[in-house]
Amino acid sequence: MRDRRPEGERLSRATAHRLSLYLRALAVWPADGGRMSSTRIALACGVTDAQVRRDLASLGHLGRRGLGYDAPELSAAIRAVLGIDRVWRAVLVGVGNLARALLRYRGFRTQGFEVLALFDADPTKVGERVEGLAIEPTERLTDRVRDLGAELAILTVPADAAQPVADQLTAAGIRGVLNFAPVLLRLPPRVKLVSVDLAIQLEQLAFLIQHGEPAADPAAR
Amino acid sequence: MRDRRPEGERLSRATAHRLSLYLRALAVWPADGGRMSSTRIALACGVTDAQVRRDLASLGHLGRRGLGYDAPELSAAIRAVLGIDRVWRAVLVGVGNLARALLRYRGFRTQGFEVLALFDADPTKVGERVEGLAIEPTERLTDRVRDLGAELAILTVPADAAQPVADQLTAAGIRGVLNFAPVLLRLPPRVKLVSVDLAIQLEQLAFLIQHGEPAADPAAR
Repeated sequence: MRDRRPEGERLSRATAHRLSLYLRALAVWPADGGRMSSTRIALACGVTDAQVRRDLASLGHLGRRGLGYDAPELSAAIRAVLGIDRVWRAVLVGVGNLARALLRYRGFRTQGFEVLALFDADPTKVGERVEGLAIEPTERLTDRVRDLGAELAILTVPADAAQPVADQLTAAGIRGVLNFAPVLLRLPPRVKLVSVDLAIQLEQLAFLIQHGEPAADPAAR
Repeated sequence: MRDRRPEGERLSRATAHRLSLYLRALAVWPADGGRMSSTRIALACGVTDAQVRRDLASLGHLGRRGLGYDAPELSAAIRAVLGIDRVWRAVLVGVGNLARALLRYRGFRTQGFEVLALFDADPTKVGERVEGLAIEPTERLTDRVRDLGAELAILTVPADAAQPVADQLTAAGIRGVLNFAPVLLRLPPRVKLVSVDLAIQLEQLAFLIQHGEPAADPAAR
């Protein structure tokens, strides 16, 4: 029995990010008799105890004073709020080393993301099977996204190909793009975008060292 | 002549992240006669014009009303604040597909990050050359980090190997870790950490779609 948060109430992006971290902590840390304390979650995620309690309170009345949280119940509540209490149908475009690394990463499926098709512009790659999927030509991207009812796209194409492919995906009705190409994509507001620019991550690290920010952030911000 | 910001004045992590984005915009967008308007930067980065002007004002008096910013001068000022107006010596541990993709990504070098050595625990990989570097055994990690004076480490090892390797790096005096293993690392405060958990990025995307947050964020947060 998990409480869904009332409609309209908005969760901030920062809170959503912390909830993702709490989910990791709940998954990897052994809970005593299925229970987990806010202190232990805070410790694992590098945030304050008060912050954890505040964030989790926004999910509904899950904690019991002195008893902590029921780990499975809490995980379910977080997954519901994040929208991963379901399977998201995804496609991947650009099957290079990064894509092969991502496809091998079991974290995706366990978190509710299923990659249904792979695409690449290089004709010599078409037909090759990677992690059980045959690479298809990028020309078929639009039709396939529609046929598969894919909602998410993972973009691991070279920088110069990213915007045209993103435009194709937008035309096909994709709802979200996870972009690894080091470019600033322009997409209509209805298509959500999360970009992972690896140089930016390194710059953030340099900044942290340079400015000696005390709190070490356990995950990409 | 760029203004360095006064000592002590602290830049927030969020601001630093936006500055990284502005740097991308400055690099990829053709500036008219070397000048760039805050409006154009805002457009490219998906933030408001006012936000750009506020962030850039904190770097010193770079903009001229009606004339916009001198692109090279602005880039230099941002790089100085982020601490990438120098070369960061880095090592990489765990030479799988992700590592190969990262090593091929020229963005690192151009942004001032130089990978000096590669390490892997798999003896069959030791000696193999990747992007001009020979893979070394992980046993030599501590000594080599000291000898090379490496400050940053890119961690692309499997989840279960991440903490032990991070501890080795900490012992070797590394200053920062860019972690791609899907685990919450525990490091002393003096070692800065930026983690890129790909499942978390997908969860953030699912959250954005689910909650229809209006502003599409152009880069990982």
